[in-house]
Amino acid sequence: MRFVAFVVQKIFAMENLLIIKIGGNVIDQPEALAVFLDDYAPIAGKKILIHGGGKIATDISRALGIEAQMIDGRRITDAEMLKIVTMVYGGLINKTIVSGLQARGCNAIGLTGADANVIAAKKRADKNIDYGFVGDIEQVNVAAIGQFLNAGLAPIFAPLTHDGNGAMLNTNADTIAAALAGALCKYYETRLIYCFDKKGVLTSADEESVIPQLNLKQYFDLKARGVVTKGMLPKLDNAFATLQAGVSSVTLCHAAQIRRAVKGDFAVGTTLVL
Amino acid sequence: MRFVAFVVQKIFAMENLLIIKIGGNVIDQPEALAVFLDDYAPIAGKKILIHGGGKIATDISRALGIEAQMIDGRRITDAEMLKIVTMVYGGLINKTIVSGLQARGCNAIGLTGADANVIAAKKRADKNIDYGFVGDIEQVNVAAIGQFLNAGLAPIFAPLTHDGNGAMLNTNADTIAAALAGALCKYYETRLIYCFDKKGVLTSADEESVIPQLNLKQYFDLKARGVVTKGMLPKLDNAFATLQAGVSSVTLCHAAQIRRAVKGDFAVGTTLVL
Repeated sequence: MRFVAFVVQKIFAMENLLIIKIGGNVIDQPEALAVFLDDYAPIAGKKILIHGGGKIATDISRALGIEAQMIDGRRITDAEMLKIVTMVYGGLINKTIVSGLQARGCNAIGLTGADANVIAAKKRADKNIDYGFVGDIEQVNVAAIGQFLNAGLAPIFAPLTHDGNGAMLNTNADTIAAALAGALCKYYETRLIYCFDKKGVLTSADEESVIPQLNLKQYFDLKARGVVTKGMLPKLDNAFATLQAGVSSVTLCHAAQIRRAVKGDFAVGTTLVL
Repeated sequence: MRFVAFVVQKIFAMENLLIIKIGGNVIDQPEALAVFLDDYAPIAGKKILIHGGGKIATDISRALGIEAQMIDGRRITDAEMLKIVTMVYGGLINKTIVSGLQARGCNAIGLTGADANVIAAKKRADKNIDYGFVGDIEQVNVAAIGQFLNAGLAPIFAPLTHDGNGAMLNTNADTIAAALAGALCKYYETRLIYCFDKKGVLTSADEESVIPQLNLKQYFDLKARGVVTKGMLPKLDNAFATLQAGVSSVTLCHAAQIRRAVKGDFAVGTTLVL
């Protein structure tokens, strides 16, 4: 009877999937990126990495005399800027990471949303602001991503999607990470780790004031008291939404802590719970 | 008995594979590229596309103040130029083609040699000239490419490889097409079509002086008589080598003729035979 229970459990137990997002602070520093890749490559099991854009696109667009369009403090992705981010995110950054992981024995494959149609999006329609070529995710192609994972590949997502009508679209990397986690957690026991430039959610300007665990009620309270800063709000809103969608755990930590975070060391970063 | 023969034939008959290479003349003209993608997308069966670089990389590097290094009339890929070609070939051009094909119902996936380690290369070692980050192909990962083809994906190769030690390398698109055809023809009945800016191998300056069929002996003769021009020599040497490796047929034609060439219309382009 115990054996049968064990077999049933094995049949119904979902495989683990680890989804990690790294931000610009890692991408912009070759040494930090090398350390991260050293830590990422040997992680066993199914895993997905999403990288942000970093400052390279801004530097290159400036050097080309293309100034970032801003409307009401928001960056607009016009046709020229779309070309730059497609080059920099989909080409330079993505292939630097992929070749770096290949060198470390990790069989990585770079993807934008257009490749194998993995992420379809819609050009953002906002009656007040024309964001340009910015994509809101419509569909994650779970079957295609599952095929890559089953083939032993480690997908590396650039923060780019496509509209299915021939246009690439610029999509925030945090949003892609949340959408992938939200869609894949139906098929995998999914953990999501956001690496950023802090050691977690902080209660003060002190970099060490990390909240080890944060539940939704506490989050609303911190938000109401103004403890959580502006930039953190969309990140945390997204993260809690993925928990509600069925993601097993969400951790926010510094990229340099990834090795311990992957091991499930709760002394590292902020782990969100509902 | 006839049934058994039929079954045996079916078991041993290899599936067809079509490999097409398009050059810069198509990539640099959005209208010509759109026409080509219209023609390429509906081609049934297993297919692979390799694209060249075009002039965009040169334009962007110039705009960034990075001048192409030339030694003895040969272009050198230094570290800065490698970044440009990785961006432009692996990002902008590759994703423009992939998203364009997705819009036309073709499930394309963009690849550089680093992605899924599909093409491993070695930095060219030449005691006379340092070509910089230029890769000579060492291995084509037939198993990985086969998995993509079996999954119904249409791989789109950028002219980039990697050295397995973390460096991307610049590799000529004609050479990649020949290497892919040479490796895959062991497993597929492989046809190779090179699209370029001529209607085929010409006997004179007259654009219509196309040689419909060219065998190796005739080629040596044309070479000896100086009829075949300098730029054509590496292309034809490569092409004949793939025939010798086991590729079923090699055709050289203009991109605008691709629809008829795919159908096997021998009135189109130059078809090489041994």
